[in-house]
Amino acid sequence: MNLNFGSILRIVGIVMTIISIAMIPSLAVSLIYGETAVAEAFAITIFITIIVGAFFAKLTKYRLQDLKVRDGFFIVTTYWFISAFIGAIPFFISGAIPSPMDAFFESCSGFSTTGASILTDIESLPKGILFWRSFTHWIGGIGILLFAIAVMPSLGISGQNLEVSETPGPMLDKVTPKMTDTAKTLLTIYSILTVIEAVLLLLGGMNLYDALIHTFGTVGTGGFSNYNASVGYFDSTYIKVVITVFMIICGINFNLFFLSVKKGPSVFWKDSEFKYYILILLFAFAFIFGFLMISGEGYTAGDTATDVAFQTASILTTTGYATCDCEKWPQVCQVMILMLMFIGGCSSSTAGGIKVIRIIVVLKLVARGFQTRLHPNAIRTPKVSGKALTSDSVSLIASHMFLYILLLFVGTFLVSFGNADLTTCLTSVITCLGNIGPGFGAVGPSDNFAFMTDFSKLVLSFLMIAGRLELYTLFIFLTPQFWHPDR
Amino acid sequence: MNLNFGSILRIVGIVMTIISIAMIPSLAVSLIYGETAVAEAFAITIFITIIVGAFFAKLTKYRLQDLKVRDGFFIVTTYWFISAFIGAIPFFISGAIPSPMDAFFESCSGFSTTGASILTDIESLPKGILFWRSFTHWIGGIGILLFAIAVMPSLGISGQNLEVSETPGPMLDKVTPKMTDTAKTLLTIYSILTVIEAVLLLLGGMNLYDALIHTFGTVGTGGFSNYNASVGYFDSTYIKVVITVFMIICGINFNLFFLSVKKGPSVFWKDSEFKYYILILLFAFAFIFGFLMISGEGYTAGDTATDVAFQTASILTTTGYATCDCEKWPQVCQVMILMLMFIGGCSSSTAGGIKVIRIIVVLKLVARGFQTRLHPNAIRTPKVSGKALTSDSVSLIASHMFLYILLLFVGTFLVSFGNADLTTCLTSVITCLGNIGPGFGAVGPSDNFAFMTDFSKLVLSFLMIAGRLELYTLFIFLTPQFWHPDR
Repeated sequence: MNLNFGSILRIVGIVMTIISIAMIPSLAVSLIYGETAVAEAFAITIFITIIVGAFFAKLTKYRLQDLKVRDGFFIVTTYWFISAFIGAIPFFISGAIPSPMDAFFESCSGFSTTGASILTDIESLPKGILFWRSFTHWIGGIGILLFAIAVMPSLGISGQNLEVSETPGPMLDKVTPKMTDTAKTLLTIYSILTVIEAVLLLLGGMNLYDALIHTFGTVGTGGFSNYNASVGYFDSTYIKVVITVFMIICGINFNLFFLSVKKGPSVFWKDSEFKYYILILLFAFAFIFGFLMISGEGYTAGDTATDVAFQTASILTTTGYATCDCEKWPQVCQVMILMLMFIGGCSSSTAGGIKVIRIIVVLKLVARGFQTRLHPNAIRTPKVSGKALTSDSVSLIASHMFLYILLLFVGTFLVSFGNADLTTCLTSVITCLGNIGPGFGAVGPSDNFAFMTDFSKLVLSFLMIAGRLELYTLFIFLTPQFWHPDR
Repeated sequence: MNLNFGSILRIVGIVMTIISIAMIPSLAVSLIYGETAVAEAFAITIFITIIVGAFFAKLTKYRLQDLKVRDGFFIVTTYWFISAFIGAIPFFISGAIPSPMDAFFESCSGFSTTGASILTDIESLPKGILFWRSFTHWIGGIGILLFAIAVMPSLGISGQNLEVSETPGPMLDKVTPKMTDTAKTLLTIYSILTVIEAVLLLLGGMNLYDALIHTFGTVGTGGFSNYNASVGYFDSTYIKVVITVFMIICGINFNLFFLSVKKGPSVFWKDSEFKYYILILLFAFAFIFGFLMISGEGYTAGDTATDVAFQTASILTTTGYATCDCEKWPQVCQVMILMLMFIGGCSSSTAGGIKVIRIIVVLKLVARGFQTRLHPNAIRTPKVSGKALTSDSVSLIASHMFLYILLLFVGTFLVSFGNADLTTCLTSVITCLGNIGPGFGAVGPSDNFAFMTDFSKLVLSFLMIAGRLELYTLFIFLTPQFWHPDR
């Protein structure tokens, strides 16, 4: 094994420095609200992290071109775990979350933009802590964009190899070839979306603090709120609509935003994934809304339309905000929501889940399966967005799907060692692996993960990071090939 | 569209004749027990079916060589539906099952060797009816063996094309090339197993009637019993062990029995699928038994070992007999049982489920996924039993898995229109699609499907047949390519 530990250590140092700098706004918030103990917790964390980080960063010379594919996997995984670990420190030392496992779970949930929470009474927490909790979503969101669009391709696991298969659809590296340029452009788009949403929420009557919290949760498709009733706290159709629209926007492939600037808005409609994404949203909305309306249980059209649109967008984009308790809907609407949980948003967005593009490929493979059985000797290649899928792409997507199902089983098995019933075990794994947030049963939209055992929380924390890193990135360390590439 | 309706009609006629002849033993049983009304019901059904069947059979000339792949799919599907339909008639006209939908469900469950039941009090039914109900398992069992091993290869959808991929592992057509020979040999093996088990059960103190009922349920891996407590009714370790052993035997690829006669018992250990099948059984047994023993809830080693061995074999082989209510076991043991439900027995056995061979291929694909991500340019071919899998085989197995998952979702969605909770909807679909029998929740081992809506029962009936016919065979009729092959 010959990982490039010098460069890795330097990058770890840089990551630590970035995370500690990212904590400064939260420190400021706690000072503004006069939360001295919390401010102290942030100050200590920042101080320690920045010193250790700077030491690591200065230790060796950092050269991107020295890094190999294996180093890339290592760095990306390390980045997420170190972020989650450092992010948990203020929760713990401020006393806001007294259990270290809970603090780590909450931080993993934040950075992986999942939004699953162990907090039973969110509103009782200091404002600085809640600000940091939501800001981790924002960092996680831009993190996954950089990972999927800028970093991975630059490491050589891009273009014709890994990335084309991991995230088919328009490729950014054809638009802006250089990694730093790409990163800057992404950060700009992400920041613009953040500012616009925050301003729109301010115009809807939110205060600045609430507006920022919910903007972070939306653009990162995370789902942390500072209210126990989530977005349902705000009795405003305007606010619900704004958040719905921004959840949908942030579930779109960010490459399309780039391309649309150059080539106009037609790029959206030429992209199969975008079209299916919108169709799935419309279909799920129409079905649930229609079913609730004919159910005769006294749903009012206006409010129901808003809530259903919000809920379908929230689940498909894997955000996890709630304006109503969809567990009170009829069973068939809940199953529809469950199906959306699996699908997730578009590739190269901040959303999690399996991703729409993979679902399209799977459906095409099933269709081809019928053809092959009827005409065993005919060769048919499935196409997406007019381009034929290579057998390598198909193979990578199929293995991704199978690993997803495998993790679903193994995760449910491990979580079932704890104290939850079958529905809860299964949906807690689905919701964490898909970076959504709430599940069904005892982890429903109006519940939380507090009651689970520490072991279950640890398993779910790993699944959140695994889901965020497209599964393979995390588990590749468990393979002998990773450690002994030359055998 | 140019299906060969002449030959199809003749085969339908033959099938009807066979089914009506197969009803004669049940007629005899009802006469022996003096059940006049039931005997009448059988006599009427046999009379009508045999006349219509003979008419169809004589209508045209039957030449096997005229049949094409598409005709084959049509015949196989028609065979199962006609059997289920005719099989339901005695249930209905005898008054034993007053609802036509329930009678059809019970018959589908019988012929598909599922074993899911709508009966709330099995013991209150006439003995002739219960005999027929269990005999449908026996017919279904030999039916699926003939379908998978003799019929499909003879239709040309065999060897290098469909069958090798549908049921990899040793191929029978290399052993006995002719279809009728194969069919006779299969029937012989199947009958020998039936006789041996029945004799062993008689030696254990069962009366002839009970022994036959439970033999039919075992060799067909069906699971219908004539007692409400299933095999738990018999308080005999010997009987439980005999049934356990025969469930395991009938979950083995029947081609191996052929081959072992010629080449000795080493063929078993050279077959990957067989090895994994035994390993899965041992692992599941050891895990559940160990967990129950250390749980400190007062399980006694001897009885628990028998029950756990019985239960794991019953679920993995998709039989569905029960000696205890495994819903009373700890959650994690139930999740283990749930995983066994997905796996199922070996290919070319009477067992249902995904089949062990497909699980092996899926795991190999996941492993290859890791290798491809580390070495994007290396080409690795997964091997099973020492033979490299062709990309066609992999593609067919992958599309099978995805169709399975798709049916799981669509089925759960459709069933959730009814009155069941999420666990019940999901596990009822799993258990029917996998031809198992009992699920969890309201369709657990000690419950039944009676409470479900007619629509849910219809959906589940279709899923039972779909599962039995390896999914694609049933749904191929929904594709435009089937009806317009020349477009």
